[in-house]
Amino acid sequence: MRLGDIIFICDVQNRRLTNGFKLTRVGVTGVMKPVKIKRPDGDNVLTCYIDIFVDLPSDQKGSHLSRNLEAVAEMVDESVARPVSGLEMLTAMICRTLLDRHEYASYAEVRATADYFSERSGPSGKVTLEPFKLISKATARRGNGMTKSIGVEVIGMTACPCAMETVKQTMGEEGYEPGDFPTISHNQRNVSSVLMEVPEEFDVEADDLISIVEDSFSSPTYELLKRGDEGRVVRKAHENPKFVEDVVRDILGRILARYQELPDDVLVTVRSESEESIHKHNAFAEMVTTLGELRSG
Amino acid sequence: MRLGDIIFICDVQNRRLTNGFKLTRVGVTGVMKPVKIKRPDGDNVLTCYIDIFVDLPSDQKGSHLSRNLEAVAEMVDESVARPVSGLEMLTAMICRTLLDRHEYASYAEVRATADYFSERSGPSGKVTLEPFKLISKATARRGNGMTKSIGVEVIGMTACPCAMETVKQTMGEEGYEPGDFPTISHNQRNVSSVLMEVPEEFDVEADDLISIVEDSFSSPTYELLKRGDEGRVVRKAHENPKFVEDVVRDILGRILARYQELPDDVLVTVRSESEESIHKHNAFAEMVTTLGELRSG
Amino acid sequence: MRLGDIIFICDVQNRRLTNGFKLTRVGVTGVMKPVKIKRPDGDNVLTCYIDIFVDLPSDQKGSHLSRNLEAVAEMVDESVARPVSGLEMLTAMICRTLLDRHEYASYAEVRATADYFSERSGPSGKVTLEPFKLISKATARRGNGMTKSIGVEVIGMTACPCAMETVKQTMGEEGYEPGDFPTISHNQRNVSSVLMEVPEEFDVEADDLISIVEDSFSSPTYELLKRGDEGRVVRKAHENPKFVEDVVRDILGRILARYQELPDDVLVTVRSESEESIHKHNAFAEMVTTLGELRSG
Amino acid sequence: MRLGDIIFICDVQNRRLTNGFKLTRVGVTGVMKPVKIKRPDGDNVLTCYIDIFVDLPSDQKGSHLSRNLEAVAEMVDESVARPVSGLEMLTAMICRTLLDRHEYASYAEVRATADYFSERSGPSGKVTLEPFKLISKATARRGNGMTKSIGVEVIGMTACPCAMETVKQTMGEEGYEPGDFPTISHNQRNVSSVLMEVPEEFDVEADDLISIVEDSFSSPTYELLKRGDEGRVVRKAHENPKFVEDVVRDILGRILARYQELPDDVLVTVRSESEESIHKHNAFAEMVTTLGELRSG
Repeated sequence: MRLGDIIFICDVQNRRLTNGFKLTRVGVTGVMKPVKIKRPDGDNVLTCYIDIFVDLPSDQKGSHLSRNLEAVAEMVDESVARPVSGLEMLTAMICRTLLDRHEYASYAEVRATADYFSERSGPSGKVTLEPFKLISKATARRGNGMTKSIGVEVIGMTACPCAMETVKQTMGEEGYEPGDFPTISHNQRNVSSVLMEVPEEFDVEADDLISIVEDSFSSPTYELLKRGDEGRVVRKAHENPKFVEDVVRDILGRILARYQELPDDVLVTVRSESEESIHKHNAFAEMVTTLGELRSG
Repeated sequence: MRLGDIIFICDVQNRRLTNGFKLTRVGVTGVMKPVKIKRPDGDNVLTCYIDIFVDLPSDQKGSHLSRNLEAVAEMVDESVARPVSGLEMLTAMICRTLLDRHEYASYAEVRATADYFSERSGPSGKVTLEPFKLISKATARRGNGMTKSIGVEVIGMTACPCAMETVKQTMGEEGYEPGDFPTISHNQRNVSSVLMEVPEEFDVEADDLISIVEDSFSSPTYELLKRGDEGRVVRKAHENPKFVEDVVRDILGRILARYQELPDDVLVTVRSESEESIHKHNAFAEMVTTLGELRSG
Repeated sequence: MRLGDIIFICDVQNRRLTNGFKLTRVGVTGVMKPVKIKRPDGDNVLTCYIDIFVDLPSDQKGSHLSRNLEAVAEMVDESVARPVSGLEMLTAMICRTLLDRHEYASYAEVRATADYFSERSGPSGKVTLEPFKLISKATARRGNGMTKSIGVEVIGMTACPCAMETVKQTMGEEGYEPGDFPTISHNQRNVSSVLMEVPEEFDVEADDLISIVEDSFSSPTYELLKRGDEGRVVRKAHENPKFVEDVVRDILGRILARYQELPDDVLVTVRSESEESIHKHNAFAEMVTTLGELRSG
Repeated sequence: MRLGDIIFICDVQNRRLTNGFKLTRVGVTGVMKPVKIKRPDGDNVLTCYIDIFVDLPSDQKGSHLSRNLEAVAEMVDESVARPVSGLEMLTAMICRTLLDRHEYASYAEVRATADYFSERSGPSGKVTLEPFKLISKATARRGNGMTKSIGVEVIGMTACPCAMETVKQTMGEEGYEPGDFPTISHNQRNVSSVLMEVPEEFDVEADDLISIVEDSFSSPTYELLKRGDEGRVVRKAHENPKFVEDVVRDILGRILARYQELPDDVLVTVRSESEESIHKHNAFAEMVTTLGELRSG
């Protein structure tokens, strides 16, 4: 550090206030960074969008926001040599650094999202590279541990069970024989997400969460569907008609089955939103809960 | 005007440049204003989002942007007493004012959009208030007249004819009898728009354009569908399976039929985008043309 | 109701589940409606964007979403004859109706936003119509009352106190005399919001909240600034340099002073985000608290 | 290819129409793909957002959209082994493939954007990784060559020359001595872009375009500014006050100087938009031109 630098230290942030208010979150939003993340099939550089906060005591004028950026920049630099093992590890590591650097803070919070690509086999086995979104959040309280969560946002397809039933009634009344083949309904693009706390000694893989969400749609969707595959996806969706409520519950059920070893206090948030094809608005379902509540449910 | 005001006139914009470049569009974007617009069933106050530009000669440093805001503010004030007859009249009137006020400009361009609500009768006659978007654009060249365009953006539903055909083949091979009742396919939310030039002595009603677009979907969509209505919309959509290409062409065909008296040089832009339910990306079709080309088509 | 309608009642939603999960929120998002709202200076038709949810017990397959749309449509129809007294009254009224209609629900939640325009006098008294956003949220628990909140989102301007200080140091070192006139700093567009619970017998006016937020910026901003007004706004902002932290605290202080009669358990959320001109990311501050906590400071 | 596949070929798209209309663009939008791109300092995997279109003759019902996805997927696969030399090469290569596969098409168009990171040295030499956006567009006409364009979108800072002048006048009137040190003004985040045609035998580097845009702001912006650097950026911006008009013209001037060897018919589009700190709307300037027009300017 050169002497000239010292002179320039801006200490407006450090000014003492006598009638200030404590603030819950002070920081920066929309920071973009490429981060190297370890994946089973080779390291991946993900473009991350990161929000970084600490709290602020009532007697301090401002938070030193540049420290947040330093914390991120160091993680990114480090990831080049040693890829982080997951987006939730990145947010957790930044959280820890924040409490080290903001000596006045008692709370730190970091949120990140990233586009992520993973191979999927379509109905007839053709492999395509599908886009997903990773979500992560970490919080830390000084002297009181840390929580970190990993999640995914997945696009899929829902076919409506109610309209299908209504159509079947109409067919019956008009003398049509619905038969075993699935009946028409409205179907649409659905965006579902799960965010799940990951306790210290445990591991939750984003890839597993993606599979859990995909399996809970009426059907997953694919970028490239040739020939009969398009028909097979349509048929599968109509053989598994689902409300957004069903999608959320099926995700919750699969999470219970998959993560039996995780403790009861693990927080889980599951959301499903359908861009209804027969309406101009969306259908939405959400569950905010703990594994314990689900188990006793 | 007080003397103090004159002193403050900022004439940086008026500075002469010797090696400047002419600029195509200089102005303001994202101006929000409530405008009173005349509708068949009573006046409507629409929240408008407006972009306002003029060109700039190579020897002038800056455009006087506050004049653009004055032009808008006056139209809005005037509309309280005398509602404008349409969004395209608003953009045209602002365009004319721009050339008056920017004495250095040879070109003016104004674009506006507005949320708009109109009543629709569902399949069983129940009336709902549906949201649409109005679009308008006006351009003026000094000493060379003006063009104004009116358009609409409408949300509807498309069912895919290709997947339906593929499913029928599968049914046949598996011994199912497709019968007369429509077969399953993928269907989805579709957003289609039309923007159409309106020559000076003619009239094009946004409400007519909305009907033209709605009639070109596999089915229009409704906010409130009770009981059998949901099934009726689904059935209608599957009895009219359409690609985005079909939607655009059907809109074009209806425009030709409806506006036979409009001259050949009228510009028409039609777009249709489906939020594919079986893909994570969208399907898109567009035609940029003139009525003359369509007629000789 | 015709007999044919009864036959078509789709009761898939009513199906009993034995191993379902309770869901926190099930409903519709993105419903758009024009609502007539009472204002001091005449009724205003606001375009509202509304999300409408109830909870769902574990043993019921689906929520009857069309009832949400009916609840909204009736409020809108009623508002034509009897304008609602505020956006928070609209969300509260829909909430109440939801619990009436979803007999299986124990919780209802409605959120709404709307563009809103209000006149403001610029530095030299010129009146302009400025855009704001109204925010509202209501929740109801069956047999346990209701909460309703009203809020606003306002765009303003912040000038940075830290950079100003740093620049002053540089000036001093280079032999410049900063003097009494404000020194350069970075300044930028800031978006701040406040959402405040409104207890049953009390009244909180959105217009007052807008003023509170505007007064807490370095300077409010205006659509139309002629001549010296632009300089006056710039000067005012630099005479009141503020971090996002300062904006949040000043809003909180003004709320305490203005609403002394409101009880301690009133929830308040205040946010301020600056689109930093010297960075590509934003600065952000937030306080989620109660009036009681603020008072005990 | 298995026999079963042939049966499933959906030929609805191939159906002949007698009264169809030609369509300008039919294809897919919002396709996301990670593409390996060659950079001076090592290969970069960029997340690309791609739109892919061909035209459609009047007598064919539909375009085979899956061919667009195949074209993209192959480029992506190939890029793993042989990184493409730039985003404009990617779009050009997909364009060429499109005309091969859509035998009925006479026109192909591909647009792509990608987040991109590049190191920048702040005022005191500290290196940060800054986010930029790459833009590309390619079009091809059968038997008539191809055009490809490369562009960038860069975030920077503008300080207003007009408000600065107005403030100086006020200072003078009030007896302040403005002196040599820059006077306060409003400054704000600015987003500027340039898109430039790249003729066949020439090369235009995105990194050069980024530098050209950055040099044309009042000041570039940085993620991490410690101590005096914040003051230095603020000072630099106020020593180079610029309208959006100035930014566009300075970019144009630098392009002329930098690309003297490029032919006259090269298309150039330059845009600059300032998120005005003293207004709620944006200021905007644009030039759509050719190098020839600029040279004769």
